[in-house]
Parts: sequence; C-alpha cells; structure tokens
Amino acid sequence: MAETSMYERGLGPNAANYAAMTPCDFVERSAATFPDKLAIIHGPLRVTYREFRDRCRALCSALGRRGIAKGDVVAVLAPNTPAMLEAHYGVPMAGAVLNAINTRLDAPTIAFILEHGGAKLVIVDRELAPVMADAIAQTENPPPVVTIDDPLADGGVMIGDTDYEALLAEGDATADWVRPADEWDSMSLNYTSGTTGNPKGVVFSHRGAFLNAMGNVISFGLESGSRYLWTLPMFHCNGWTYTWAVTAVGGTHVCLRKVDPGHIFEQIAEHRVTHMCGAPIVLNMLIHAPDDQKRNFEHVAEIATGGAAPPSAVISSMERMGFKVTHLYGLTETYGPSMICAWPPEWNDLEVDARAQRMARQGVHYTTLEGMRVVDTESEAGVPRDVPWDGETIGEIWLRGNTVMKGYLKNPQASAEAFAHGWFHSGDLAVIHPDGYAEVKDRSKDIIISGGENISSLEVEDVLFKHPKIMEAAVVSRPDEKWGEHPCAFVTPSPGQELTSDEVVDWCREHLAHFKAPRTVVFGELPKTSTGKIQKFILRDTARGL
Amino acid sequence: MAETSMYERGLGPNAANYAAMTPCDFVERSAATFPDKLAIIHGPLRVTYREFRDRCRALCSALGRRGIAKGDVVAVLAPNTPAMLEAHYGVPMAGAVLNAINTRLDAPTIAFILEHGGAKLVIVDRELAPVMADAIAQTENPPPVVTIDDPLADGGVMIGDTDYEALLAEGDATADWVRPADEWDSMSLNYTSGTTGNPKGVVFSHRGAFLNAMGNVISFGLESGSRYLWTLPMFHCNGWTYTWAVTAVGGTHVCLRKVDPGHIFEQIAEHRVTHMCGAPIVLNMLIHAPDDQKRNFEHVAEIATGGAAPPSAVISSMERMGFKVTHLYGLTETYGPSMICAWPPEWNDLEVDARAQRMARQGVHYTTLEGMRVVDTESEAGVPRDVPWDGETIGEIWLRGNTVMKGYLKNPQASAEAFAHGWFHSGDLAVIHPDGYAEVKDRSKDIIISGGENISSLEVEDVLFKHPKIMEAAVVSRPDEKWGEHPCAFVTPSPGQELTSDEVVDWCREHLAHFKAPRTVVFGELPKTSTGKIQKFILRDTARGL
Repeated sequence: MAETSMYERGLGPNAANYAAMTPCDFVERSAATFPDKLAIIHGPLRVTYREFRDRCRALCSALGRRGIAKGDVVAVLAPNTPAMLEAHYGVPMAGAVLNAINTRLDAPTIAFILEHGGAKLVIVDRELAPVMADAIAQTENPPPVVTIDDPLADGGVMIGDTDYEALLAEGDATADWVRPADEWDSMSLNYTSGTTGNPKGVVFSHRGAFLNAMGNVISFGLESGSRYLWTLPMFHCNGWTYTWAVTAVGGTHVCLRKVDPGHIFEQIAEHRVTHMCGAPIVLNMLIHAPDDQKRNFEHVAEIATGGAAPPSAVISSMERMGFKVTHLYGLTETYGPSMICAWPPEWNDLEVDARAQRMARQGVHYTTLEGMRVVDTESEAGVPRDVPWDGETIGEIWLRGNTVMKGYLKNPQASAEAFAHGWFHSGDLAVIHPDGYAEVKDRSKDIIISGGENISSLEVEDVLFKHPKIMEAAVVSRPDEKWGEHPCAFVTPSPGQELTSDEVVDWCREHLAHFKAPRTVVFGELPKTSTGKIQKFILRDTARGL
Repeated sequence: MAETSMYERGLGPNAANYAAMTPCDFVERSAATFPDKLAIIHGPLRVTYREFRDRCRALCSALGRRGIAKGDVVAVLAPNTPAMLEAHYGVPMAGAVLNAINTRLDAPTIAFILEHGGAKLVIVDRELAPVMADAIAQTENPPPVVTIDDPLADGGVMIGDTDYEALLAEGDATADWVRPADEWDSMSLNYTSGTTGNPKGVVFSHRGAFLNAMGNVISFGLESGSRYLWTLPMFHCNGWTYTWAVTAVGGTHVCLRKVDPGHIFEQIAEHRVTHMCGAPIVLNMLIHAPDDQKRNFEHVAEIATGGAAPPSAVISSMERMGFKVTHLYGLTETYGPSMICAWPPEWNDLEVDARAQRMARQGVHYTTLEGMRVVDTESEAGVPRDVPWDGETIGEIWLRGNTVMKGYLKNPQASAEAFAHGWFHSGDLAVIHPDGYAEVKDRSKDIIISGGENISSLEVEDVLFKHPKIMEAAVVSRPDEKWGEHPCAFVTPSPGQELTSDEVVDWCREHLAHFKAPRTVVFGELPKTSTGKIQKFILRDTARGL
C-alpha cells in the first residue's frame, strides 16, 4: 500500500462534504430563499420562485414516470418561454439530457438532430409544431410529442397526444429529484449551426454548466435584483448558460418570444430590465428602430454581445439610448461565453473611438476557465508555440478548463482534433496585445489575400460599420485575375437610406490602406445562420459567381 | 463490460476540458487581466497584480527549492499583511498546506499546533517573533523559521536564519507552479479556537476553497472595483476565504495590522473601501469610537458580520455612519460563511427594529453549499427529523455540501461525529421560520432553565445590547436554590458611562417576560477567545463561584 500523507488520511469525501455540482440546485436554492419573488415574467404571466421550482420538479417527476432516465434525451423546440426555462431544470433533474433545438432550422435538419441525439421525447411550442411534425415524419422511430400551448403563441397547431400542462399534471411537485451521481454526467446537448455539413452535437456536463453559470454571474454582475431580458435564444448554448445564471442569484427572467425592437424597448422600460445579451444584429435593430418604437428609460441596461466586436458607432449609439455594452467571446464548445473584454476603470476616460478599439478585444478568460493562449498555427504540428504579445502576430485562440465541452456526440475524431495538445482549438485567429488581451482578427478562412498582402475582412467590415448609412456589412474574397483575390463587400443600408458603390469604396479608401478597399460592392440583405451569424460561405459563392 | 450510454462514451475528462479547481488560479488570472491594477495597499506600500503574482510564484518556487512538497505544512503567524496574503497563494501553489495561526495564542498552544500539524517551515512577523521563539523552544523537532521584516511592524525581533525577502529571492518568479493533481487535495489547515481542550485542526481542500470564494463573491457582490479592508483576521478560516475571493475578481486588498477604530475610519475614507467583515466587536468599536476618530465618507461601505446577530441599535448606528450591514453565518468547519441573511427587497421598507428582527436571522445557505436543515436533536439517534418551519421549534443546524471541511486532522472520531447521518452538525440551536430562514437561538449549552422554563441567553443579550449605556453583554446560567438556575448578566458599559444593577434589571423586565430578566449583574470586561468570541465557560465558572 502506498504511503498516504496524514493530510489525506481519514479525510475523504463523504455525503456531508462533497456534492456533485449541478445547476439544478439553483432553482431549489432560490425557491428556498426567495419563494415569493418573481422568477419569470412572460407577457401578463407572473411566476414566483416557489411556483417555478414546483413546475420544474413536476416536470422531472412526470419524465421519470414516463420512463425517461439517465442518459435519455429530451428534445425541446420552443421560443424563450417559461416552459423552455422549466426544461432547463426538469430535464436534467430527471438525470436526462436536454437538447434545445434551434427554432430557425428546417425539418430535415431537425430530423437529423432528433435521430443523431436519439431523442426519447419531444416537447414543442405550438407555433413551431408544423415544422416539428414534418421533421418527426422523416424519422425512423418517431418519438412521442408533447405540445406547449403558450397563450402568447401566434397560431400553430397542437400535435401529439399530450399538452405540456397535462404532462406536468402527471408529475408530483413534492417529489425529490436525484442529484447526479457524478458531476461529469451529461446534462445538455447543443448542435452547432454548422456552416457546412451536418451539425455536430456538443455535450455539456453538470459541472461545466454550474461553473459557467457562476462565471456569468461574476463577469456580468448579476445579483438578486437583476432582471434579465431574453433577447438571446435559449437554444443557443442554453442561452449562454444564463438560463442557469439568472436563477443562481434569484434574479427575474423576462421571457420574449420574438426579437422585436418595439417590444424590447417596452419590456426594458416597463420591467426595469438590468441585463440582456444578444448578437450584434440585436444591437443594430435597437439602434435603427423607428423613433416611435424607442422608449426612454432612466436606469442603465447592461447588454452583452458576442460573435463580432461592437463598432464604435454601435457603442456610442447604444450608450446614448441608455445601454452599457460588454463584449463577450465564446463558442458552443465553451458553454457560450468564456472570455470577456474586462474593463479596467482607466478605459472609461477614453474617447468613444478609443474605447471601441479596446472593446473590440475578446479580452481575457473567465475566472471559471483555466486558461487561454494564442498559438502560432505554423507550430501546431510539433510543439505549440505562443505568439508574441505584440498585438500584431496572428495565431489561433486555444482554451482549456472546466467550461470546455465534454466533446462532440458520437464523433470521437472531431473531439480528438478539437482537443489536440490538451487545448480546445477555437478556429478563431487573433492577436494578443501586450496587456494579455486577445483580439480576434478573423476566422482562418476569412483572410483575403490580394496581391500577396493579407487583408482582414473584419478590419474592412469595421470601417463599413462606421458609415452612417450602413446597417450591416460583410466582406469576403472575390477571385481577381490581376490580384489573385480582392475584397468584395455585401452591404445592407440603414432603413430608408440610399447609397452608391462609389460612396462605399471612397469611404473605405479614406479610412483604410487603398489595397484593402473593396473593389466590388453588392447591396441587399445578408444571409444568416439560424443563430444570426452571417453565412460567409454563401457570400463567397455569390462573389465567385459575379 | 458494463454498457456505457452514448452520452458518456468518448466524452471523458481530458487536459482540455477538465482542471482541478484551485483558488491559486485567481492570482494568475487577475495578473493576466489587470496587471497594473492595485492588488494590495499596505500603509504607503502599493503592490500591483503583476507584482503580487510574481511574489506568490517566487514564494512557491523558493519553498519547492527548500524541499517543501505536497502535503507538507507551512505555518504562518502574522497580522493582515502582504506576506500573509502571499502565503495564501505561494504555499498551496507549492502543493503544501497553509497553516495560518491565530496571532492571539500563547506559546504553549502555538507549540501544540506546530507539533500537531507537523509544520516543516514557520514564517513569522517580527512583531510576533518573541511568542513564536518561545513556542518553537517547546517543540521536539524545531522547524526552520523565516521572519517577515514588515516596515509597519512595531518592534519585535528577527529570529531564524532567513528573512522573508531573502526567502523570496531564493525563488524564481517566472517558474510555473504545478496545479494540484486532485482538487480534493488539502490546501489549508485552521485550528478551531477550542473553548475547552486542545484545538482541532480543520482541513480545507482546493475545491472547497475555490467554491466558497465564489460564494463570497456572489453573496457580497464583489467586483473588480471592490476595495476590501482587512478588519477580519486572515488567520480566521483564511479570512473567511476572502483572501481568495477578493483576488478572484481583481479587487484591491487593503491590509491592516491592527483593529484600531481611528485607523479603520481613515482607511475607509482615504481608499474608498467598499467591503469589509468583522466580528460584532468590530462594529461596536466603530460605533463607540471617540468622535474625533470618526470620519465621514460619501460612499456606502458594506460590512458583513457574523458570530452573533447585529442588534437594531448596532444596525442603525452603523447605517448613520455610512455602512450597510450584512449578517453571515458559518464556522471554521464550513470555510467561514456558508449562510447569509439574504435580503428580499421588500424588507428595506421596514422600520429599523423590524429590520433588525429580520437581520437577526442566519438565513439561507450559500448558492455554493448543497443544503441546510434544522434538525430535531431528540430524533438524532434514529432517523433525523426536520423541525417544523414555525419559527418556534428549536433544533440543530445541519449543513452539507462542497464547502464543508474535509475533516479534523488526525481525529477520525471527531470527524465521524461531526459528519454523522451525512450532514455536518454545527452545534448551533436554531428555529426555522415559515419562509425557510434559520435563526440561531443558542448554542446547546447556552440555554438557561429557570423554574422549568427555557430562557435563551441570546434573547436576553439582545435586550441588553439595546440599552444605550451598554457596549457589550453576555448572559449565562447561575445556580439558584429556588429556580434551579437563573440568568446572570455580565455587562461592559460604553466608554465613560456608568450603570447600576437595578437599571439593568429594570430595563430587562421592561422588555422581556419577567422570569427572563437577570437576577445577577456583574460589570467589567468580558473574557474572549483569540478570535473574539466571548468565553462563556469562564463566565459560567465565575457565575457558579459568586
């Protein structure tokens, strides 16, 4: 027998001093602490924490009685409603895995997901029942369906043989649920949007979800008085784990079925919303909303955004309307946000352009993540080398720690590639500044090489975004006989604005090295993935065909 | 081979997605995020996060070069100084166990602790070197000593053959430290103050320390702008784990060698201190400080207190001076605070007396602890039964979860007793209110039984505290021929005040059922343990001898 230090002898884990971490605890703790406090606002509906907890427990119990057990998948297709929140607790409380499906997917993709994940039960909002019915018809072993009859749903149909309230009535709200035996157990499955090929299933553990929720609480300053507006889809990495973070502090979830600027302003003003998250398009929609839809509010609403850095024009417009912008970075593979452009107080004194320059940084890793580095991709084959912290040398962002996914479901090869060298490879290219803040410059395939010079499509987009008449823009490479490639800009003018190609090119030449200015400009709406990311591969195809 | 669910297959922990949690990460992360931000203020000294991290790493490296390895103990006897903070990182970074020793202990007790814990190295502040020299002389195998030459120390002597700066110079600040192989590894050892018999050694793990620090961040609302004043001893459960929590958010530690009211007010005003903690005596000292020592400050300073509920007079006096009081509860065995009187917004509208009544509650468990219950101690032999949530029935507070100690060092019997039935037994008697908030009524031995009626010494003390001329009071039982026992009050009048026994008794009869009023009143200073707890066993002896 190996010698044991007296510091480990007789000091092992037991029921009193060790518990598997799980975010399911949050709803229990908040119900115990603030039973009569508002947990959920949904249109005219008000749900207290006691009621929320009881409904989650009832769902858990009903699932158990239907034979849903550890490792089984429950798929949910629903907008940001109370039932969707309840699923984030009731399903993992039953030991099962929650698969929240993107509401913008088509039936064949949903069918693929249901079969790949092996869903044992489907819960669907009535408005989305038609596409789900279509998807289920395409599966070999159709799972049973429960339909949510949300009073705020717009049309749709009830399908399957049970409605959601009847399912809850099958359960016992006083029944205890069973904590996972191991905090590493899987609790949720999120499919990446997949710009090419089939989507990949990202698996989260109870441990990771608990810790990333804590990371959000700390990074975004949530507390029991917080009111969180659901502008970010809950199907998107479980709402970046805010589904659990807001409950952890006993804050109030303000549900939202649709991202409609007028409705958002109304909710912010009426419910004194303190926090919200969203893709850049959400910020743009708020800025470009017609004046009669805008509302003044006296408090400051914190808004976190990710996916692309907020340009200075966006920051200053948002600030004028009463928002404070925070820039987060993450991927589905990192439970949503895992880095933050943490804001040293001295940056507050900078002019808005300089602030935007700082805020463009993806920043530093969360306290709940172990580490971040930017690695010279040339060195990857051998021993990975960090790029110098010079703000210039580009490398790939690598992340590691407890809030990195367990892996891709049934895809050991993709998992092994993602985890090579013991770090998760983000696929995002970035520099690292002398102060240690990372700044994404591009996805590897978004670099345009023109006449041997590298052009960052992000840099050109940044300049386009600053044009007062431009609402959205994306830049890709277009084959060019002389230069090899040149930048091609796709531009959506702000509502009611007109713009010529020359105006766009001149603007860029004024603000960029001339070789970086687009030589082609195309006007129109931009194609997006279901999570709101611009689909550059479609634009690249278009540019090639021009 | 057992069947593995596809949700666990190929999805195990690896270097990319699993890291042992440790609070040592906090100093690395804050140095990476805010390298030039103030980590520590100590008199005229200013330490940035980069410097703080480098010094912690140097200490770690120096300890390793001296052969300190996993499971070895480094004992530190020092006031709340930068070196003491550095020990909270450098020692566990080296895989070793930090034993922060109470600075108010006598040499024989320190000698007992050094021998019981098996200290391999001692680090001592020069002011405390005399008692340490004495203690070491009483040990069988004297450990080597390093003395800290703190410029703010008052006298003392340098002992041993190395001073602390020379020790740091032995280390390499650029050397990487090794993350614990297992987050369950021991990282700190804290001896209980032990009102009777030898102190017990409470062992903390990296996991528990990490999580309790997170719990403190969330409960007390720490963020990167926070400035934390060290009125609470760092030797007291590692400063209730605030030694790690403040660093986790990149806040500023304001060190403090002595609890002196004038100096405290000065630090609060000068450094815009946002948060501090302290035993009730600290609050009393601030309230009763001479006017010329008090300072006005415009911000609100949060102060958390524990050990006894703050009476309404204390709450309102503190509020008038610009403080906001939070009531925490915990024990060394629970990494310091593990419960909080969480404050529902509607309680703000109550009058101060009603607020004090609410704030008297120890409240609800931290989000980072699994559970709390109040158990009928009569039922303990069989199946433990919870007391009804009626605010009247008294039971014992039991706690369980990741922030409960690993156990008592070399004392399996005491550990087993403490963890019976899979819960940690606090020894504190409490009721649980209908809203789920616990309120401590007494330690089991502090109940006075007079004429068959139970009298809570806490309740009588509460009334005494409200008397304008009383600074401190403690009530114990005194044998009584007629009634069996009666309450005996020990009273310290406020500075410059005089008071008679009759005044005290009349005041109590006015505010309490008559049988609860003390029949004996003794004036003078109260005996305290080294952590500031009133030593009731001494008062009980005194009362018996009267």
